[in-house]
Amino acid sequence: MEYVLSERVKTLKPSAIREIFKYAADPTVVSLSAGNPAPEAFPVKAIAEISAKIFEENPIAALQYSVTEGYPPLRKAVGDYMKENYHVGREFDDLIITSGAQQVMDLITKSMVNEGDTVICEAPSFIGSLNSFRSYNARLCGIPVESDGMNIELLEKALQTEKNVRFIYIIANFQNPSGVTTSLEKRKKIYELAKKYSVMILEDNPYGELRISGENIPPIKSFDEDGIVAYVGSFSKVLSPGMRVGYVIAPREIVQKMVVCKQGEDVHTNVWSQMVAYKFMTEYDFKAHLENLREIYRKKADFCMDLLDKYLVPNKITYQKIEGGLFIWCKLPEGVDMADFCKQAVLRKVCVVPGNAFLTDESEQCSSFRINFSTPTDEQLEKGIKILGELAKEVL
Amino acid sequence: MEYVLSERVKTLKPSAIREIFKYAADPTVVSLSAGNPAPEAFPVKAIAEISAKIFEENPIAALQYSVTEGYPPLRKAVGDYMKENYHVGREFDDLIITSGAQQVMDLITKSMVNEGDTVICEAPSFIGSLNSFRSYNARLCGIPVESDGMNIELLEKALQTEKNVRFIYIIANFQNPSGVTTSLEKRKKIYELAKKYSVMILEDNPYGELRISGENIPPIKSFDEDGIVAYVGSFSKVLSPGMRVGYVIAPREIVQKMVVCKQGEDVHTNVWSQMVAYKFMTEYDFKAHLENLREIYRKKADFCMDLLDKYLVPNKITYQKIEGGLFIWCKLPEGVDMADFCKQAVLRKVCVVPGNAFLTDESEQCSSFRINFSTPTDEQLEKGIKILGELAKEVL
Repeated sequence: MEYVLSERVKTLKPSAIREIFKYAADPTVVSLSAGNPAPEAFPVKAIAEISAKIFEENPIAALQYSVTEGYPPLRKAVGDYMKENYHVGREFDDLIITSGAQQVMDLITKSMVNEGDTVICEAPSFIGSLNSFRSYNARLCGIPVESDGMNIELLEKALQTEKNVRFIYIIANFQNPSGVTTSLEKRKKIYELAKKYSVMILEDNPYGELRISGENIPPIKSFDEDGIVAYVGSFSKVLSPGMRVGYVIAPREIVQKMVVCKQGEDVHTNVWSQMVAYKFMTEYDFKAHLENLREIYRKKADFCMDLLDKYLVPNKITYQKIEGGLFIWCKLPEGVDMADFCKQAVLRKVCVVPGNAFLTDESEQCSSFRINFSTPTDEQLEKGIKILGELAKEVL
Repeated sequence: MEYVLSERVKTLKPSAIREIFKYAADPTVVSLSAGNPAPEAFPVKAIAEISAKIFEENPIAALQYSVTEGYPPLRKAVGDYMKENYHVGREFDDLIITSGAQQVMDLITKSMVNEGDTVICEAPSFIGSLNSFRSYNARLCGIPVESDGMNIELLEKALQTEKNVRFIYIIANFQNPSGVTTSLEKRKKIYELAKKYSVMILEDNPYGELRISGENIPPIKSFDEDGIVAYVGSFSKVLSPGMRVGYVIAPREIVQKMVVCKQGEDVHTNVWSQMVAYKFMTEYDFKAHLENLREIYRKKADFCMDLLDKYLVPNKITYQKIEGGLFIWCKLPEGVDMADFCKQAVLRKVCVVPGNAFLTDESEQCSSFRINFSTPTDEQLEKGIKILGELAKEVL
């Protein structure tokens, strides 16, 4: 039988990163292409203890159906945490727990975007979110990211000329893949533009707690007196991605529609993981854990940037220093065939992600690639970057 | 700000059952409106043991990102089980793990149904699935369910006259809410009609293992030589619904698109729960557990049907005996205002689900209501059904 597929999925492809994972599965290949948290960052002992306690004290609640909005104590704990620490969340907002932050991208698109409507995003941007928007046939409009965030002139031009713009998608802290942190000034300008053109902002902040240098910059959502920002948070980088726990804080009217959509998608998020997240936040020293994570990633990032300075920079590959997150964006000289460079790297057993995978149109020209420093060991990082340097020396 | 919502969610409402839960939350109300498995059916001790073992032996795998298709050992175990026990799954099929069976309804609709396309379903049918189809603006066409399954003449007529029918949605065993089991003869006819009109079948089987009397009837998927059936299974009724683990077995081409959609929805299903399900299936006596479940539900169902015979049948409320599942469908005499009857029941502190909640058009006339016997205790069941009988005696 010839299967009839919906228009929205006809052109949808598996993430290019997944294709690269095929190479990365070869144990002789050094993979700098992943985005996994460092395994040593998981509080295994605490999770094991909490889990045992749940099955001792309250097993039925963990195993039975629960409410779509999320485990009520966790909703409250996250809401309090975000309000106290980041001034996020107002009277008109509501907070629900989702099956990872990824689910928020899906639910908000389902709730707000008709097929053919426009989503403005950073270029480059996180491919998982772009594919979520694409899966509802949204039109993507990418705004180039500069060293301090989106180009504001091009953003305003897009808001003036694009039809039916539903929201602006932004990762303001240590963006994936560019590593860029949007400045306070630009955050304010983006907020004012969204307000002026009556467009929502979807602020995705998976890496916000992983700042390794510099001062915290307030989330855009913290300015939100007008109810125009949906803020997305995640436990994937601060606790465990395998647990799939995220959340959204957004105006109640939108959250209510997202709840109805979530009911039809997975009824509710795994209860055990919500209970673990709750107990970890409230019965353990969550702040000390975050400090420990920052220490782990600070060491890894510094080690990685030292290697880049030693092996790549002298061979014409540049990069922007990062203040947090898990990724560094490396730029080849103009005119070099980036895809070919990445292919040659794979032949030498080093895997990076070609930058065009993160563009709204993958066929656009791009001279950058993304490397990740959280998953590989120090030995793998050194080996991989050294090989990239040798390759650069030969071909650039 | 006035929020612009997508066309597809504008008319989407929270499930009527959820509204009823508000009454059911009152501890003085006897709720016969839920659909939760009996708490005594959860293998708490085994899950606690398995969970402890996972964090002792393999914590990083449980906490790290995993593959979208699902935990490979679980995919294999479920595939083997379904092939050996039900002859489900052929060369052209693939199997993926989902975040509950509910997610399959979403993923297959996203993959195959354009806005305005038609989904044929049983009338009445499971509201969670109907809402999933509605959330993609599918047009629903309900085929009346008789005591042995869908009316075949009306099904063929719908296949002839409805435009762009994408699939026929059917719960063949102990259907929710009608309790009806589709006969082998009708299963074969439905298969032949789907083949004749080149339409897929979405066979949802959450209750299949909960047969309390009679002989197992082969799933429609077991006849599927043509690659036209997507079979949906779930661990919610045989292990735990809070864990959110389901699966789909369907032609590879469709499953591949569902995987891409799942990537954008939640990346992958909670890993811990997949590992627990795997170990429970393979390291414990899964068949003895299922036999134990059937014993629990057999007792509860028989007790409930005895109460119905004692209190409702003499007072003009009829029902069809069930051979499994969690629900019984009760019918008021023609001409009685069912919604009013259910309201009066709530005032007397008994909560049932008005039958029209399960129709494709809730405003259609319906004289039935659904009761559930798995969640209430025996005392609650007796109390609730007795009150319904008193009410019936007075008003019918």
